[in-house]
Amino acid sequence: MASSRRALALLALPLLAASPAQQTPAPSPTPYEAVDPFIGTGGEGHTFPGAVAPFGMVQLSPDTDAECQIRECYAHAAGYRYDDPTIAGFSHTHFSGAGHSDLGDFLVMPVSGEAVPLEPGDARVPGSGYRSRFSHDGEVARPGYYAVTLRDAGVRAEMTAGTRVGVHRYTFARGKAAHLVLDLRRSLYNYPGKTLWSSLRLRPDGTVTGSRRTRGWAPDRQLFFAMRFSAPLKDHAFVSTEKDVAYKGFQGPGRGSDAVAERQGRALVGRFDFGRLEGPLEVRVAISSVDEAGAMTNLDAEPGGFDAVAARTRVAWEQALGRLDVAAPAPMRRTVYTALYHSLLAPSVAGDADGRFRGPDNAVHRAAGFTFRSTFSLWDTFRAEHPLLTLVQPAATTSDIVRSLLASRRASPDGILPVWQFQGRETWTMIGYHAVPVIADAYLKGIGGFDADEALAAMVASATYAPYGGLGDYMKRGYVPIDREPEAASKTVEYAYDDWMIARMAEKLGRRDVAATFDKRAAYWRNSFDPKTGFVRARKSDGAFRTPFDPTAINYGSDYTEGNAWQYSWFVPQDQAALFRAMGGDGKAIAKLDAMFDYDNSQLDYSHAEDIAGLIGQYIHGNEPSHHVAYLYNHAGAPWRTQARLKQIVDTQYKPAPDGLSGNDDLGQMSAWLVFTALGFYPVTPGSLEYVIGRPFVERATLALPGGKRFTVVADGLSDANPYVGRVTLNGEPLARSYLRHDEITAGGELRFTMRSRPNRAWGKAAAARPYSISRR
Amino acid sequence: MASSRRALALLALPLLAASPAQQTPAPSPTPYEAVDPFIGTGGEGHTFPGAVAPFGMVQLSPDTDAECQIRECYAHAAGYRYDDPTIAGFSHTHFSGAGHSDLGDFLVMPVSGEAVPLEPGDARVPGSGYRSRFSHDGEVARPGYYAVTLRDAGVRAEMTAGTRVGVHRYTFARGKAAHLVLDLRRSLYNYPGKTLWSSLRLRPDGTVTGSRRTRGWAPDRQLFFAMRFSAPLKDHAFVSTEKDVAYKGFQGPGRGSDAVAERQGRALVGRFDFGRLEGPLEVRVAISSVDEAGAMTNLDAEPGGFDAVAARTRVAWEQALGRLDVAAPAPMRRTVYTALYHSLLAPSVAGDADGRFRGPDNAVHRAAGFTFRSTFSLWDTFRAEHPLLTLVQPAATTSDIVRSLLASRRASPDGILPVWQFQGRETWTMIGYHAVPVIADAYLKGIGGFDADEALAAMVASATYAPYGGLGDYMKRGYVPIDREPEAASKTVEYAYDDWMIARMAEKLGRRDVAATFDKRAAYWRNSFDPKTGFVRARKSDGAFRTPFDPTAINYGSDYTEGNAWQYSWFVPQDQAALFRAMGGDGKAIAKLDAMFDYDNSQLDYSHAEDIAGLIGQYIHGNEPSHHVAYLYNHAGAPWRTQARLKQIVDTQYKPAPDGLSGNDDLGQMSAWLVFTALGFYPVTPGSLEYVIGRPFVERATLALPGGKRFTVVADGLSDANPYVGRVTLNGEPLARSYLRHDEITAGGELRFTMRSRPNRAWGKAAAARPYSISRR
Repeated sequence: MASSRRALALLALPLLAASPAQQTPAPSPTPYEAVDPFIGTGGEGHTFPGAVAPFGMVQLSPDTDAECQIRECYAHAAGYRYDDPTIAGFSHTHFSGAGHSDLGDFLVMPVSGEAVPLEPGDARVPGSGYRSRFSHDGEVARPGYYAVTLRDAGVRAEMTAGTRVGVHRYTFARGKAAHLVLDLRRSLYNYPGKTLWSSLRLRPDGTVTGSRRTRGWAPDRQLFFAMRFSAPLKDHAFVSTEKDVAYKGFQGPGRGSDAVAERQGRALVGRFDFGRLEGPLEVRVAISSVDEAGAMTNLDAEPGGFDAVAARTRVAWEQALGRLDVAAPAPMRRTVYTALYHSLLAPSVAGDADGRFRGPDNAVHRAAGFTFRSTFSLWDTFRAEHPLLTLVQPAATTSDIVRSLLASRRASPDGILPVWQFQGRETWTMIGYHAVPVIADAYLKGIGGFDADEALAAMVASATYAPYGGLGDYMKRGYVPIDREPEAASKTVEYAYDDWMIARMAEKLGRRDVAATFDKRAAYWRNSFDPKTGFVRARKSDGAFRTPFDPTAINYGSDYTEGNAWQYSWFVPQDQAALFRAMGGDGKAIAKLDAMFDYDNSQLDYSHAEDIAGLIGQYIHGNEPSHHVAYLYNHAGAPWRTQARLKQIVDTQYKPAPDGLSGNDDLGQMSAWLVFTALGFYPVTPGSLEYVIGRPFVERATLALPGGKRFTVVADGLSDANPYVGRVTLNGEPLARSYLRHDEITAGGELRFTMRSRPNRAWGKAAAARPYSISRR
Repeated sequence: MASSRRALALLALPLLAASPAQQTPAPSPTPYEAVDPFIGTGGEGHTFPGAVAPFGMVQLSPDTDAECQIRECYAHAAGYRYDDPTIAGFSHTHFSGAGHSDLGDFLVMPVSGEAVPLEPGDARVPGSGYRSRFSHDGEVARPGYYAVTLRDAGVRAEMTAGTRVGVHRYTFARGKAAHLVLDLRRSLYNYPGKTLWSSLRLRPDGTVTGSRRTRGWAPDRQLFFAMRFSAPLKDHAFVSTEKDVAYKGFQGPGRGSDAVAERQGRALVGRFDFGRLEGPLEVRVAISSVDEAGAMTNLDAEPGGFDAVAARTRVAWEQALGRLDVAAPAPMRRTVYTALYHSLLAPSVAGDADGRFRGPDNAVHRAAGFTFRSTFSLWDTFRAEHPLLTLVQPAATTSDIVRSLLASRRASPDGILPVWQFQGRETWTMIGYHAVPVIADAYLKGIGGFDADEALAAMVASATYAPYGGLGDYMKRGYVPIDREPEAASKTVEYAYDDWMIARMAEKLGRRDVAATFDKRAAYWRNSFDPKTGFVRARKSDGAFRTPFDPTAINYGSDYTEGNAWQYSWFVPQDQAALFRAMGGDGKAIAKLDAMFDYDNSQLDYSHAEDIAGLIGQYIHGNEPSHHVAYLYNHAGAPWRTQARLKQIVDTQYKPAPDGLSGNDDLGQMSAWLVFTALGFYPVTPGSLEYVIGRPFVERATLALPGGKRFTVVADGLSDANPYVGRVTLNGEPLARSYLRHDEITAGGELRFTMRSRPNRAWGKAAAARPYSISRR
């Protein structure tokens, strides 16, 4: 990290760096400079350090992973791990922080010299393949830019990316022949049989196009590319390494040669030879989910060489990051800006420049008047990521997201909204119909550009589709029965929240019938709450809770989704007050929250569960079910306990280092939590138009809003010694309630915290001062 | 056969059949009635008996084949064999007479009763699967209509087809539940791994759509379908029978059930349940190479139920067959009309109703102003099939064919014209660039609608593409060297003919430079002719002919393509006179022709070569290299010998029975030979605008021509006892030459033969009376 930052400083500030005698403190880095894409590339973050534009379709990043079988691939879900010694190549698609994976499409690796290995080789045996050792010396990662020196390849590699284009720049060892290997056999989360089909084609104008169809996380995904080189191609080979082909058909032109115009197969690798080059080789690559023509259209839509693309993307990042102006000590500022950066990667653009996109039906559609986006990790992102985008991005971003969700539903074979979708393809990962809160929250916040009646119809269709996730039983019984559907406890409470959002959307649209139906369903969480134990539990068809019951047990396909009763017993964001009453009142709720955080977990081993990381007792910050929990003290009238817990979380779960994320970033959700929390408030209940006030972690933050408005948070007296909020004012007036309204932010103004060393137990205690709950309003 | 004809008669002429006392002879069947689609379904013909419209995209036909490995599949190349006892189902795509195969897409089988097997079972064990026994009793095949009773299934099955639509009509056993099985695992020329991917989807409106991507003869072929039922669907199952899937991803809606909205995989079978039906079940199916939307568009473009589609297709066949009015004894008439029927199946429509089609680059294109066709078996069909279409079809048919060839070339990754293409996908089967004579012959005959300059450029590109079939060496050395490229002797002589056609096209376009280049190449056949042995032979790079040399040897990948020196030594259609001189003069040529036909082949075994059938000495009528040979006596001034050989061939190689074709029909070429030959002339040299006169086999034939013109052939005195032509008149004037000019046909008129028992050795003997040769003109 240190070395990478040195390299960055050398590039960005050559004069200052060259003048150590100058004693004035260096000016604070710009938001762009404050971002460290290495954060999360070690540990559990699963982020990637490579080049990407805001919400870019292309994520051009190094892959260090060794060949892995599925479960072993978890650590390499984003392709790169900071501690790995070798790089296998640079591929064009990566998830930021996913807990499951795929992608790593179209891996390119430069090779200098005469011998051009077509296999990656063994990471432990240098020179055994095209894989190359690298070190962090001279490795640079900035938003939209990545550079590394490949020791064995003898190449300096630089990457940048536009929206639908990635550009490689390779400087080969002087006097040595320049080659590229393009390996279509490699993929993230690879395994035998994953590649259903692939193709390579050299067109007469020198453009290389190709495709891959894979059976991975998306059960059938097609991706196409178009690639152009800055230097003329001297020779090439398209090689198939597939064995045991039962029937090979007839051979086309170039019989017996690999220098054919095209090749198809299940295991293809391409070699491109450029001879000795005077300068660097630039490789422009665009991708498309539609077809090769789409990839070529995308390539043409973003013209220019490496520097031109890099400059445009830098401007785009500066604008996007610059909407939030943060003053804080350098480490926290770096953490916050990197979190903001990570929250601006998904839902990424997935449609072509001409509007065409591939939908959940695997057919090609056209987006009229909007940009189709995908990579919807909705179970994660409905919580804070989408509410954050609504605040820090132009309205068009969220409008595009909603229109993309609705377009996907129109193309859904099941007629329902996306669950976990990428590149337009559904993976059926995680639970719930959490496109619902994303759409409803956006609509209630005034985001337009879509047909609200269609949106409501899509929500209702998704919430009433009996074959999905036990919904048939849920509708009939008021809960999902665990003997008929796994993870029934989690499903019941999450469905109930989504149902509440449908009711709010229907209410807003004057559809009282729909609102009444779903308001009733919004209370179904009660059917899964066991007053005896005080936990949300899974019920069987006969009505009894399933036994034996161990609130600490975490297993896939059990009563809960990536969690246990401790985490899931807090998920009633639509009515936390009612939940607390069911638990026996605020005092008992607070005691239970404390018991959760203070649980002695030293005897527990959750290493079998991939996504369980970042433990504080039974609070698991590395996974989403816990994300709103620290704020719930506010609902019980004890914001000072929230403030204490937030400090505990921020201090232990985030740091500006490769292992700086305690869990998968989950397409921005972990980061969005931090951005909100740093600013002092958090959307516990998307759709309520409220943000629960925690405590700020930055001295000052200003959010640029539409119409030139600004909303500023100030934390007077902020320090480690002053972890508690003494007083809050909004636009100079004392704020007695422990929540903020959305319109108070969008109107512009100043939220000022006075921090102090001891709790203010009175503030936010009154019932009227507490955040949203159905039963309180 | 007998029974099927009885069933046909009963349907078509019920009153006559019911009134045996009536003594007047039955009126001659109409052309439509004279067709017997069973001809060629036994023996070597490889035709199919099922329902197809003229040039229809859908060939809906029964498949009787047992599971086979590739080489064993040869006999079942068209899915059905007349002698097989069981039918596995009805699939929508078949080649007519191909020597290699693929297709058999989307196999549907009806099942009555409670148990619905999803495996075909063993043909030898009735009831072991959905496969059913059948007999020829009540089996009916007419153009566009097929019916059979499935004994084990308890179902009467009827098929009809429009251009892009197939309609099934199933009458289930009374009182029994009706089901359909749709088996995406089955294919013609099936083998493990052929299905790369497939999908099934039930749409909310009851339409079933799906797709299959296969690696077969076309190395990557995608086909889509849309299917609608006349009765409501009661239940369904989409089952995957694939084993050993390394990674299955997450399960979507309908967890654990087969009644899902969609399923994807490599081994899918669908079951559709309709309960007890009052009447027959109709199933409308359309296919598309583009996508499911294309299939649905195609389905909508041809509305109506079974009877409506059948009636439209019957009219289309009556019109197409009715352009030729033939008087002949019933067996010959049946043979000729069935041949005409078989010549009107390919090149079949391959583009969608909206103009979209999939090209050789596997991308989707749009045909503007024409109908995209494919199934180009060009090595076979450039000889007589395409010249026949130019005479018996509207000009639009050949114009579409040429435009499709040019559109394919535009989308070709290699930039060349199709070689052996189907559904837009190239198979690289056989040799030559025989799209060239198809296009040039059409252009020289006045067929328009395409850019002639583009056509010439496409021809030149195809003829100069070095990586294809040894063309690099051919251009450099004047022949294809056998030590560098297999089948070099055949390639050299076929390239030379195609080159001659390019020269003629260039000449017509005033491109003397191009004409000169290719006129020079047209003489390259000489470089492969060995004057010592009198045979065309394969030369090595060093210039020597390869030894040992056995003119009777036939092996794949040898010096010749599906043949030997005997057949290939006659392939200089552009200059037979020069060839004969090289052979030592007309007398030696005639003697060599006789030696070929009279060769004692009793000691030869060619059973290892699939396509070698229909032997008369070393003349092999079952394969194309021999097709023009019997006519070559005319070039040597001995038409009477041609007449004798033609009788020998027609008598032994064609008959109106399932085994009535002595070789693969090859997408109409075998049949087109017969149609021409029956009319008394044959296009030995497409592009010469000449037809070599043989002798007629019908008493009278009238060809309806554009503008209401008619060209009539009359054979006075035709009988087995009068096999020789005594005299020929054209429009009443004696015709001294032994060939006919194209414009003489298209002008309308009468060609009258006077047949007699003994040869007229004088007619056609004069040099000026002989057919086209470069060196004679």
